[in-house]
Amino acid sequence: MASRQASPSPSASMSGSLLQFDRFQSLVDVGFWHRLSVLKLDTLGIDQSPVPLVGFFAPHSRAHVSNHLNLLSESLPDPVKNASPLETHLGNRNKCPVPGILYNTNTLEGFKELDRDNLLQIEANKILADIQSGRVEEDSTLLLRFLVISFADLKTWSFRYLFAFPALVVDPPATLLSLQPATQILSAEEAESLSAACNEWRSSSLTAGIPFFIVSINSDSRATLRPLKDWEFCQGDQNKLLFGFYDPCHLKTNPGWPLRNFLTFICLRWKLQKIRFLCYRERLGLANLDVSLIGDALISIPKDFGEPQYIPKAVGWERNGNKLAFRHICLAESMDPQRLAVSAADLNLKLMRWRAVPSLNLDVLKTAKCLLLGVGTLGCQVARTLLGWGVRKLTLVDSGRVSMSNPVRQSLYTFDDCLNGGQLKAIAAARNLKAIFPAMETEGIVMAIPMPGHPIPAQETASVLEDCKHLQTLITSHDVVFLLTDTRESRWLPTLFCSSENKILINAALGFDSYLVMRHGAGPDVSSPNTNHECRDDGTEVALMNKLSLKDGDTRRRLGCYFCSDVVAPIDSTSNRTLDQQCTVTRPGLAPIAASLAVELMANILNHPDGIYASGEIANSITSNSSQPLGILPHQIRGTISLFSQMTLLGYSSSSCTACSDTVLSEFKERGMDFVLQAINHPTYLEDLTGLTELKKSAGEFELDWDDETDDDADVQ
Amino acid sequence: MASRQASPSPSASMSGSLLQFDRFQSLVDVGFWHRLSVLKLDTLGIDQSPVPLVGFFAPHSRAHVSNHLNLLSESLPDPVKNASPLETHLGNRNKCPVPGILYNTNTLEGFKELDRDNLLQIEANKILADIQSGRVEEDSTLLLRFLVISFADLKTWSFRYLFAFPALVVDPPATLLSLQPATQILSAEEAESLSAACNEWRSSSLTAGIPFFIVSINSDSRATLRPLKDWEFCQGDQNKLLFGFYDPCHLKTNPGWPLRNFLTFICLRWKLQKIRFLCYRERLGLANLDVSLIGDALISIPKDFGEPQYIPKAVGWERNGNKLAFRHICLAESMDPQRLAVSAADLNLKLMRWRAVPSLNLDVLKTAKCLLLGVGTLGCQVARTLLGWGVRKLTLVDSGRVSMSNPVRQSLYTFDDCLNGGQLKAIAAARNLKAIFPAMETEGIVMAIPMPGHPIPAQETASVLEDCKHLQTLITSHDVVFLLTDTRESRWLPTLFCSSENKILINAALGFDSYLVMRHGAGPDVSSPNTNHECRDDGTEVALMNKLSLKDGDTRRRLGCYFCSDVVAPIDSTSNRTLDQQCTVTRPGLAPIAASLAVELMANILNHPDGIYASGEIANSITSNSSQPLGILPHQIRGTISLFSQMTLLGYSSSSCTACSDTVLSEFKERGMDFVLQAINHPTYLEDLTGLTELKKSAGEFELDWDDETDDDADVQ
Repeated sequence: MASRQASPSPSASMSGSLLQFDRFQSLVDVGFWHRLSVLKLDTLGIDQSPVPLVGFFAPHSRAHVSNHLNLLSESLPDPVKNASPLETHLGNRNKCPVPGILYNTNTLEGFKELDRDNLLQIEANKILADIQSGRVEEDSTLLLRFLVISFADLKTWSFRYLFAFPALVVDPPATLLSLQPATQILSAEEAESLSAACNEWRSSSLTAGIPFFIVSINSDSRATLRPLKDWEFCQGDQNKLLFGFYDPCHLKTNPGWPLRNFLTFICLRWKLQKIRFLCYRERLGLANLDVSLIGDALISIPKDFGEPQYIPKAVGWERNGNKLAFRHICLAESMDPQRLAVSAADLNLKLMRWRAVPSLNLDVLKTAKCLLLGVGTLGCQVARTLLGWGVRKLTLVDSGRVSMSNPVRQSLYTFDDCLNGGQLKAIAAARNLKAIFPAMETEGIVMAIPMPGHPIPAQETASVLEDCKHLQTLITSHDVVFLLTDTRESRWLPTLFCSSENKILINAALGFDSYLVMRHGAGPDVSSPNTNHECRDDGTEVALMNKLSLKDGDTRRRLGCYFCSDVVAPIDSTSNRTLDQQCTVTRPGLAPIAASLAVELMANILNHPDGIYASGEIANSITSNSSQPLGILPHQIRGTISLFSQMTLLGYSSSSCTACSDTVLSEFKERGMDFVLQAINHPTYLEDLTGLTELKKSAGEFELDWDDETDDDADVQ
Repeated sequence: MASRQASPSPSASMSGSLLQFDRFQSLVDVGFWHRLSVLKLDTLGIDQSPVPLVGFFAPHSRAHVSNHLNLLSESLPDPVKNASPLETHLGNRNKCPVPGILYNTNTLEGFKELDRDNLLQIEANKILADIQSGRVEEDSTLLLRFLVISFADLKTWSFRYLFAFPALVVDPPATLLSLQPATQILSAEEAESLSAACNEWRSSSLTAGIPFFIVSINSDSRATLRPLKDWEFCQGDQNKLLFGFYDPCHLKTNPGWPLRNFLTFICLRWKLQKIRFLCYRERLGLANLDVSLIGDALISIPKDFGEPQYIPKAVGWERNGNKLAFRHICLAESMDPQRLAVSAADLNLKLMRWRAVPSLNLDVLKTAKCLLLGVGTLGCQVARTLLGWGVRKLTLVDSGRVSMSNPVRQSLYTFDDCLNGGQLKAIAAARNLKAIFPAMETEGIVMAIPMPGHPIPAQETASVLEDCKHLQTLITSHDVVFLLTDTRESRWLPTLFCSSENKILINAALGFDSYLVMRHGAGPDVSSPNTNHECRDDGTEVALMNKLSLKDGDTRRRLGCYFCSDVVAPIDSTSNRTLDQQCTVTRPGLAPIAASLAVELMANILNHPDGIYASGEIANSITSNSSQPLGILPHQIRGTISLFSQMTLLGYSSSSCTACSDTVLSEFKERGMDFVLQAINHPTYLEDLTGLTELKKSAGEFELDWDDETDDDADVQ
C-alpha cells in the first residue's frame, strides 16, 4: 500500500501532520472457501443471514511485508461443536482472533445490490457501541471487527468477495506529533524490560491473543503490560503510559490500521487527547523494539460527541489495486473433479430441501442400500432415478447379457456393450453407473432368480439352492428391494423373502400401454394372531375394499403384495411365450414413467414415519396426507397411456396368497429352503398349501432328440 | 450317404433286389436366412402361416459329389414383385426350381411341438393328389415337393430347421432288375442321339428346368425328349421308351431320390409296372451317358390303390448324421453388428405393431425429423424415448456445457463429459446418442435461443439476428419441435415460428413435483377471418372452457399455446433467480415422466389423421377416441407426484396471446425479424401490441464496477 501513502516529508513525523494509517489487507485461504461451500450446502442452504467469522492476524514479524488479516477454514463456525470460533482460537500467538461477519448472498445480483455503505455503518456502529458500553475493555478485539460480503457460486466453484475493516471517522482527525523506533524513545533498561514484558505477554495463552494493551513503565524502568480493563489502576500512578497494539504494518513511517479505532476508543472512552502509542512489532517471534514504533498523537473529542445520536461516519472497504472492486477466485480447477461431482450432485438435492421440502430427509436416501432385481428397461431407469435422488449404494442382479435391441430402451447400455455376444447386464450396469457418477457404490451380481413351477434337474439342485440362499442374503443386507423382472413367477421368491423380513419391496410391472407400481405390505407377524385381520380379496374386490376401509379408517390390516389378488399361483409363463411376449412389448414411454414412480414411491416411504407399515393412501381421499413432506403415500399406482390417466389403488393382503400369507410364511419359517425347493420343483405344492387353482405344469427345458422316437422313415422298401 | 446304403452285392444290380434311392440333401445359403429375417420383420410379423418356397437343384455334374437341393435368398417370395418364385426362376439349367413350403414358428417350443408326421403326410398327400389329378403331367416338379420347418430367433440371429423330401411309400416296394451306365445299354448311335437331344432339352429355356421327361428312341436310333404331358403320343409307337429324370446323385450303384415319386407316378397314373428309367447326369454342363445310368425296375400297383381313401404312408425327413435332429445355424457373428443393432431395435417396434397396434404407422416415426430445444434433464430423456420409438433424425440445440451436477439427472451425459470445463451439451448429446445407437442421425447445434425482454447491446445485434434466422431455418426443416428449455421466455420465439408455420410443437415444463406436457395448436390462418373464433381465456377459465367446448363439441377453435393462458408476456425471469431457481429444482422422477409423456403425445399426433389440427381430447370424456390406434390425443397433460395423479386438460387459443395470436402473427408476417428484434429489445413492445400487463424490465447483464460511484472512503483525515 506504500503507493497509497501521501509520501510523508522527512519532517512529517516530527511535526503535527495528519496521522496516516496503513490499510489492513485481507488474505483468504482456499480452505475457507471449501468450508464455506460445505457450510452452505449442509447447513445454511438458502438462508442468507450473516455468518460470524474469525479472522486471524499477528504483529508484523518479517521485514518488508505487513501481516494480513487471514481467513482460514476455521474462520467459519464449526458445524460440529457449536463453540464460538473466537473462543476456540485463543492462545495462539500467531493467530490473534478478530471477530468478523460474513454476508454471503444466493445470487450475483443480490451480491451486487448489497447496500455496502449501510453494512459498513452497521459494523462501525457496533464498534462505537462497544466503545461506549465499555465492552471493548473486556474484549479489545471488538475494535477490529471486520466485514466480508460474498457470492459463492457453488455450481462453478467461483467466489466473489469484498472485505471491509470498519473505522470510525472522528472529526477533527488525529494529528501525529512524532513517530520513532521505540529504542530511540526508551532507555536501554526500559527497552529491555518492555521487551521482556511483551514476550511474556505474547507467550501466555491468556494474553497472547489480546491485541490491545497498556504499557506502564515505572521509575525503576520496569515495564508492565496490562489489559485495557485495568485502566483505572493505571490512572493513579505517575508511571509512563504507552498504549500498545499488535501492529501488522511493516512501514517505519506509519502505524497500522488497528491504531485507528484504538485512538478513537481512548479518546471517546477515556477522554485522553494526547496519546503515546506503541506499534508493537516482532522479529523471529520475539519483541523487537528497533522495528516497533512509539509515537505521540493528538486527538480531540468530536464536537458533536455529546449529542444523543452521535454517529461518526465509517470507512474501510478494502481496495483492489487503486479502485474498489470485488475480488474473484475460482476453485473449480483446484478441486478433485470427483469431489466436485459429488458436491454438485448433492447441491440439487439440498436445494430441493431448502426450497421445497425443508423436512425432507436426504440422508435416509443417501445411505439406503437398494437392491435391483432385473436390470432391463425398468431396472436401468430405476437406477438412474435413484441416482438423481442421491442414492449411492446399488446392487444390481440380472442373469442376462446386453442384446442388440437393448440400448435404445435400456438407458444404462451403449452399442459397445452389445458387441461380442453382449456384456453381462449386471456387470455393465454397475460399471456404467460409476461412469455416470464415480461416487456410486455399485455391485453387479449375475444370477437368475429361481422360480416356482420351474422344476430343476437333480444335478442343478445344489446351484439353485445356492442362488436361493444368495438372494436371501442380498435381501437381508439391503434396505429396499426393487422387483423389476419381466415374469410373474420370478417375483415370487423375492416377495417371500421380503415379507418374511418386513423388507421394503417396490414392484413395477408393464403392459403394452399400462403400468402398475406398488409397494408390498409388511409380512405377517407369524407369532401373533393379528394376521387374522386379513381378508380374502380378489382383484375385483380390491377397489370396493378400499372404500370400506377408508370409511372405517381401518389401518391395522396388512397391505397386499403382487400375488395377493391372484387366483393362481405363479406358474411357468416363459415357456411358449411368443416372440413379442418374450421381449415384453411396451410403449417406449412406459418404463421411464413406471420406474420414476417406483423411485418416487420409495422416497415417500423412506420419508414416512411409519415406513413399510404406513397405511395406503388414495389421491383426494380423506386420508390424503399432506402432512407428509412428499405428499401422499399410496399402495398401488396404476396408469394407462392410452388415456394419459393414472390412479391410486389400495389392496389388502390375502390369507391365501402364495407369497405373503401367514400359511406360506409359517411354512417357510419352519422348513426354510426345503420349502422353497419344493415350491420350485412341485408346481402343485403352493396350490396344495394355499388351496389355489391348479398350477400349469412347466414344460421345462427339453432338448430335441428324436432317437427314442420311432422313425417310420426307411431307406429300403 | 454311402454309409447309409445297404452295400449291394456285386450281383445285386443284375437280379431283383430292393430298389434303393440315394437321399436328397439340403444346402441352405446364408442369404436365405437374411431374407427370411427381413420377411419376418417387415411382412410376416407373428403370422405363422406357411410360406411358399422354391428350392433349386440340378443333375449331378461333378465327380464324387451329389448335388443338393439349395435354398437361396430368392427361394423366398419377393416382397416387392408378387410373382410366384417358381415362374421367376424358369430357364436356368443349373437352378431347376422345386416347389417347397416353410413352416416357421414364433417360438422354439412351437417348433419342437410341430406335428412332423402330419406335416409330412400333408405334403405327400398333395403329391398323390397331383399324380391322380394329372397336374404332374403339366408340372413335373410337383413330384419333388419339399418341406422345411424352422424357428428363426431374430433376437440372437440363430435358426433351427429341418428338411423333408416327402416320398410316397407304395406297397409292395419296387425292385431293381438292372442298373448300368447308359453307354453300356445303348448303341453308340443311340447314345450320341440321346446326348444331343438331352443337351438340346437342357439348353432350351422352355425345358431346361423340367426335371422329368420321356425319352423315345426310334428304330433309326433317333432319340427324342418329350414332356410327361406328351405321354399319350408316345404310347402308340413301338419306340423304346425311357423315363428320364435329372439325377442329383453321384453313385454308380443307386439312382437318386427324385426317381422314387417318379416311379410311383408312372405306376399309379400310367399303370406301367416294368419301367426302364434314365438317371440323367452331366459332366462339364453336357449330357454324359457314361455316368448316366439306365435301369429296369418292377413296381406293382398297391393292393389297396382302388380303395376310395387310398393314402400311402410318407417318409422323407432329412437325417442329420445318422439320426433325426434339427440343424442349427447362428448368423450373429457373420452380420455387421451395426446392422444387427438396427434390425434388433426395429424388432421391438414391429412386434409392438404386430401384437398390439396393427394400424400403427412406424414409418412416420422413423422418418420424422425432431428438433429438441434444450438438452437438459428433459431433453436427454425425450431423446432417449424418441430412440425407443424408432425416431432416427434428431437435432439437438443447447448453448450450455455439461456441468458436474448434470449426469445424475441428464441421462445422455457421463462424468467424463464434465471434465475440463464440460463438453458442450448439444455436441455431447449428439455424440452419445450415436454411441447408444450408431444408426442415429444426430446433429448438435450450440445456440442460445433469443428471448424477448432481454435487450441486446448494439454490437451483438447481428449475431442474435443470425440466431433468430438459424432457429427459424431449423424449425422449417423439421417435422416436430420439442420445447424443453428451463425458462418461460426462451419458449416464445420457437412458439412464434412454429405457429407461423403450423409446425407440431410439444412443450414440457416442470415444477417441483408437478408437470405440464402440451401440444400447441395450429397457427392462425392470417389470411382467413376464422381466427375470430378465438376467445379470450386466462388460465383459470381454461378448465371451464373445456367443459363448454365438450358440450357443444365445438372443435373449430384453435388449441392454445403455452402463452395463451398467460396474462403477462414472457419476461426476463433469469435475472435475480436464486440458486435453486437457476437449477430448476424438481423431484428426480419428474423429468422422465414428463419427457416420456411428451414423446408418447408426439406418437399419437403423428398417428392421428388430423395431425396438428386434431381437436383436444380428454380422458373419459365423450370425445374420448378409442378409434385412434394409440388412444386419446389430449391437448394438455398435467400431473403431480405429490398426489400421484394426472389429468388431461383442454385450452383454446387467446386473441391476446403474445406468441400465437393473429395480431402477433400478422405483425411477424409483415415485418419478420424486425418485429422479432423489437420484441427482444423492447420489453413493452409485445405488451403494446397485444395489450397485456406491463413486462418486467430486464436487469440485463451488468458488470460490477464501482469506479463511477462516489466512494466516501478516505485514506487521510
